[in-house]
Amino acid sequence: MKNISGGVTAAKGFAAASTAAAIKYKDRTDMAMVYSQTPCRVAGTFTTNLVKAAPVKWDQKIVADSEYAQAVVVNSGIANACTGAEGEAYCQQIADKTAELMNISADAVLVASTGVIGQQLPMERMCAGIEAMHTKLKEDLESGHDAALAIMTTDTKPKEVAVELELGGKKVVIGGMCKGSGMIHPNMCTMLSFVTTDAAISKELLQAALSDTVMDTYNMISVDGDTSTNDTCLLLANGLAENPEITEKNADYETFKAALYVVNETLAKMMAGDGEGCTALFEVKVVHAETREQAKIISKSVITSNLTKAAIYGHDANWGRILCAMGYSGAKFDPDQVDLYFESKAGKITIIENGVAVDYSEEEATRILSEPEVTAIADLKMGDASATAWGCDLTYDYIKINADYRS
Amino acid sequence: MKNISGGVTAAKGFAAASTAAAIKYKDRTDMAMVYSQTPCRVAGTFTTNLVKAAPVKWDQKIVADSEYAQAVVVNSGIANACTGAEGEAYCQQIADKTAELMNISADAVLVASTGVIGQQLPMERMCAGIEAMHTKLKEDLESGHDAALAIMTTDTKPKEVAVELELGGKKVVIGGMCKGSGMIHPNMCTMLSFVTTDAAISKELLQAALSDTVMDTYNMISVDGDTSTNDTCLLLANGLAENPEITEKNADYETFKAALYVVNETLAKMMAGDGEGCTALFEVKVVHAETREQAKIISKSVITSNLTKAAIYGHDANWGRILCAMGYSGAKFDPDQVDLYFESKAGKITIIENGVAVDYSEEEATRILSEPEVTAIADLKMGDASATAWGCDLTYDYIKINADYRS
Repeated sequence: MKNISGGVTAAKGFAAASTAAAIKYKDRTDMAMVYSQTPCRVAGTFTTNLVKAAPVKWDQKIVADSEYAQAVVVNSGIANACTGAEGEAYCQQIADKTAELMNISADAVLVASTGVIGQQLPMERMCAGIEAMHTKLKEDLESGHDAALAIMTTDTKPKEVAVELELGGKKVVIGGMCKGSGMIHPNMCTMLSFVTTDAAISKELLQAALSDTVMDTYNMISVDGDTSTNDTCLLLANGLAENPEITEKNADYETFKAALYVVNETLAKMMAGDGEGCTALFEVKVVHAETREQAKIISKSVITSNLTKAAIYGHDANWGRILCAMGYSGAKFDPDQVDLYFESKAGKITIIENGVAVDYSEEEATRILSEPEVTAIADLKMGDASATAWGCDLTYDYIKINADYRS
Repeated sequence: MKNISGGVTAAKGFAAASTAAAIKYKDRTDMAMVYSQTPCRVAGTFTTNLVKAAPVKWDQKIVADSEYAQAVVVNSGIANACTGAEGEAYCQQIADKTAELMNISADAVLVASTGVIGQQLPMERMCAGIEAMHTKLKEDLESGHDAALAIMTTDTKPKEVAVELELGGKKVVIGGMCKGSGMIHPNMCTMLSFVTTDAAISKELLQAALSDTVMDTYNMISVDGDTSTNDTCLLLANGLAENPEITEKNADYETFKAALYVVNETLAKMMAGDGEGCTALFEVKVVHAETREQAKIISKSVITSNLTKAAIYGHDANWGRILCAMGYSGAKFDPDQVDLYFESKAGKITIIENGVAVDYSEEEATRILSEPEVTAIADLKMGDASATAWGCDLTYDYIKINADYRS
């Protein structure tokens, strides 16, 4: 497996388009379409928030009931959440319009929205956007990149990744794009993530591979502890790579799943590292835990601690806040056994041993914490399990983004 | 029952003293002592954080095993948390020193610390502080007020309250002080709270009254979602009011508990309203819930949502974030049934009805949200239970306080 250029259009037969439909933003693109020249098997994971946006409900139905999907229509600016029956009817209209133009069935059209909650979509402009996009669909990498730009809200960078692998002697590609910067604390899935592949794989195993990898990637990131109403991760497979179809959990399945994990982890880390207002990606590894679940609970507790996040912003080795967040996580461990390290490109430093601070250099620690990607490693000395979670620092700009205007 | 002036020295027979011991801060007091002229029954609730500060472990033992307590010694600046066996030995030394000077038993001395985690207490200065205080103990309100000042860390105001009630024809007083501004998300108890009363009440019922009221007061506030290592609430009763001793859950017990609830709620709200960097007390009421537990889970989820807190800072009626936080709380309800209101001294406004926004005035909403105390009311239309939680807004100053120096 190797990384290659591109994103959602890297796999064979996937095209994308984008347009400036003036949904809410001005002077930028805000709609994207992804289309496969042949029908795709589709898998999805969605928010566990009880308050689910209309497009989440729509996609859940498609993923559950439709044998194939072929198009995804996305808008940024308005989330179509808390919009009642009117908002749900708009999903149907978006699918109908797209189906008519592309000459496919409406239940092969997935929809996704991100932006402000509670406002209704301007349907005339949405439909005009779909019309504009359907003639612009292209299978090149640039169109995929432009789609990644169009789905951004408070993101500062587009997020895409692609990998190439071999299955049964055939070259297979998995590529994807995502967006997510605020209201990011996925549970069963993330903000919006769209992954495409030309692999041939059964619907059941496509969903299994997605669900498995989502648990350890998107579900292990947090920007602000707020689980969105719109979290959606869709995985489309059109089979154009012509590999022998994966219909059981064999070696090919494991190879596919490992590559999918890399795609999802990369996209998830991109979201955490581009958290609203953040200056650093903050990675927390819990090692030598008794169980993986325990390691996950503890690492997630640390990356969601406001006090720890503010200290990371200040490049302050305030390890007491980390131990405190581990302690209130709900997972059991012995605080008097814990070793803690900070690590980055600038080096690695031991901060506490057996629950008590060693005589470390604050200057050295601050130097290590001043990098754009910093890691805290907590060694529980209990067993062989481990887990990693990704977050970001808490900054003035987070407040600015979320207090100064309605996002 | 009526409110009266004073705090921890308002009840008969309680004296306080404070001193500038240079534990960490300069040019301010940082140690306090509370002393009862007669032995007290004592009740306590403590942090549920697995990482417990040395003074928490000390006090838990005293509350469990000692029949009486008579003195409390508190310092601010250093938390004596994550300090290993050395930190635990210091608690014994503080108690020994105080016991010797006051001629009481060391297991009648409670200790409490608040401040930075991981540093050892400067014991020479601690002991000098205790010596200075033991000659300054006074039963007047001013000494109680000065003690409330000495235990502050990032607090901007001292926090004290006192009430007077009648039990069995006798005047009884309950008074208290607390501190807490950051790392505030109490679970079973709060940062540091000291409540004194001259009521005569059995140890068992004193603890019952405290535990019951703590659940609905301190445990319903949050500043930043971080449950401290040092949370301690102590309640001392010396019986000098000479009311018939409360030994069963009779009318007197209910009267006492109701007054204690007022004291604890007042102190808890003072902490939430003085959260680090905050500009507003943010109250969330969930009404017509099916169960009280459901109402508590939902109201706490809203007051801990960073996105909601940032919107409150921006005086933005961003109700989508409130519904979102209700939705990921884990409690079940029907989003399509919810009504939501904002209320403050400036008025009350309906924002959503049956899960969808009504045509409200953004200007009017912003005017209501610009007060220093604002309330969101969510009506679930399911039953008769309700709950209230208190938090504060999330501001630039929170980041400043927690990123710019080690607190």
